[in-house]
Amino acid sequence: MTYADWIAVDWGTSHLRAWAMQADGSVKAEACSDDGMARMNSPEDFQPALLSLIEPWLGAQPLPVLACGMIGSRQGWSEAPYIKAPAKPSALAPHRVAGTDGRIRLFIQPGLSQSKPSADVMRGEETQIAGFLSDTPEFDGVLCLPGTHTKWVHISAGEVVSFQTFMTGEMFDLLSRQSVLRHSVASEGLHAEAFDAALEETLSRPEKIAQMLFAIRAENVLAGLAPDAARARLSGLLIGAELAGAKPYWLGQNVAVVGAALLVDLYARALESQGAFVTRSQADTLTLKGLSAVYQSLAETIA
Amino acid sequence: MTYADWIAVDWGTSHLRAWAMQADGSVKAEACSDDGMARMNSPEDFQPALLSLIEPWLGAQPLPVLACGMIGSRQGWSEAPYIKAPAKPSALAPHRVAGTDGRIRLFIQPGLSQSKPSADVMRGEETQIAGFLSDTPEFDGVLCLPGTHTKWVHISAGEVVSFQTFMTGEMFDLLSRQSVLRHSVASEGLHAEAFDAALEETLSRPEKIAQMLFAIRAENVLAGLAPDAARARLSGLLIGAELAGAKPYWLGQNVAVVGAALLVDLYARALESQGAFVTRSQADTLTLKGLSAVYQSLAETIA
Repeated sequence: MTYADWIAVDWGTSHLRAWAMQADGSVKAEACSDDGMARMNSPEDFQPALLSLIEPWLGAQPLPVLACGMIGSRQGWSEAPYIKAPAKPSALAPHRVAGTDGRIRLFIQPGLSQSKPSADVMRGEETQIAGFLSDTPEFDGVLCLPGTHTKWVHISAGEVVSFQTFMTGEMFDLLSRQSVLRHSVASEGLHAEAFDAALEETLSRPEKIAQMLFAIRAENVLAGLAPDAARARLSGLLIGAELAGAKPYWLGQNVAVVGAALLVDLYARALESQGAFVTRSQADTLTLKGLSAVYQSLAETIA
Repeated sequence: MTYADWIAVDWGTSHLRAWAMQADGSVKAEACSDDGMARMNSPEDFQPALLSLIEPWLGAQPLPVLACGMIGSRQGWSEAPYIKAPAKPSALAPHRVAGTDGRIRLFIQPGLSQSKPSADVMRGEETQIAGFLSDTPEFDGVLCLPGTHTKWVHISAGEVVSFQTFMTGEMFDLLSRQSVLRHSVASEGLHAEAFDAALEETLSRPEKIAQMLFAIRAENVLAGLAPDAARARLSGLLIGAELAGAKPYWLGQNVAVVGAALLVDLYARALESQGAFVTRSQADTLTLKGLSAVYQSLAETIA
């Protein structure tokens, strides 16, 4: 008897989380550290970082470890090649990593790719989607997963049919913290009216975005635009342009917005202002649910 | 008799240049340093930095010094408030800075502002424009000054009628060097065909820009998009979206593109592909020409 039946791992750019799991999906223990991908300098760095977290859970028999996230990227522990959409996110063949410590058998969940209508990739979100679908197996419509790289995902019959990624979150971070706008934009807070107005501007005139962004600075200098209103304008302009570009995804669709609470609220507010039918869902627990769903559907292969 | 009749100064974010000038506009000497605005921590730092450059040119009598650029911003030596457009860029009342070293009389060229149709500001470019108009006084049409913050300027009867700024250059820098695209984009070189194709994509679908940007990464990962082609795509997507937004400025207009050679070529190539009538002009000498034009037109006030 080992302490756990298997181990779930979410390994992203900035974090590493692990759960000691029982076969029935219940959690016996969890642990996390800051040993995200960004701290790993070579493939050799991964195993010690993982073992330092999960060693207390290991026994003499090799335990299945199922991991998702950037750990499977080209710069990760071992590349788990992308699977082409359309695909069922809980049934992607996991990538087996050989040569690990004898107490673990490591599998990495692959990301999803598509070549048409536009080249795109996801890695990590496929597992959140699997978690969402394990909660809501009948869902048919569009998932919006806002974040650094926001994903719009068309789901039908339990499959990811197609998706597209917008760099909106990363642009917000770069512009608010490193561009000329950093002098004008508050570090937190959001002014709802300014957000709504800015959203409408780029939804109707997305081609003006680079000009409207600079106008935030000009309005601050000339007219004393308040920093919280400036932050809201920056957010509204970027999300408005994104909604203009993603319109084929959300217009007349059921949209479930899934992510961190603050971002979910912003995107849901924006979509509802355009008459979309929106449900909100928090992402906290979805990755673990997704890993469990993958483990269940693949238990025969893995165990 | 002093060594020079007046001193011209171009003081930007990253550089400080000064010229010892004769009344007839000829240059007796020039000097430059890296003491740009970015190195100045307080208003007290400016005078020593300037004197260390121009001291050899000074005599017992106070010499007029005419400066332009970020030195006149709120974070500069002394704020030279913006003048509202429409305005003639060689005839903006210079801002007199009191309390300087007795050997100089310092004047700072103000920037230009507008509140409609969109809040906007320029500081430094107004002097380049004055220089351009001293070469081409009959010019009627649109100036495009590509750079970190590209300016589109409507010129009529020697005046700046209106203008608009796009953050295109700063977005290119941030995205190519600090975003996820940094792994995919070459640090130099440009692939002309990839530039042209990307330009067309955002010119016709500017709302897709944040998605097309991420697709650069995906195409690199999935299909081995070459780094020089990726760099060209990034540039083409950003400039294409800018041209879509600036269309009222260039469509059916005479456009003079003024700036650094490489950028002028890119913008001119892009505009010509859309059938615009374009002339190219290098910016190297325009700031000094502009300061000279300002000095001539204001000699009575300044001397």
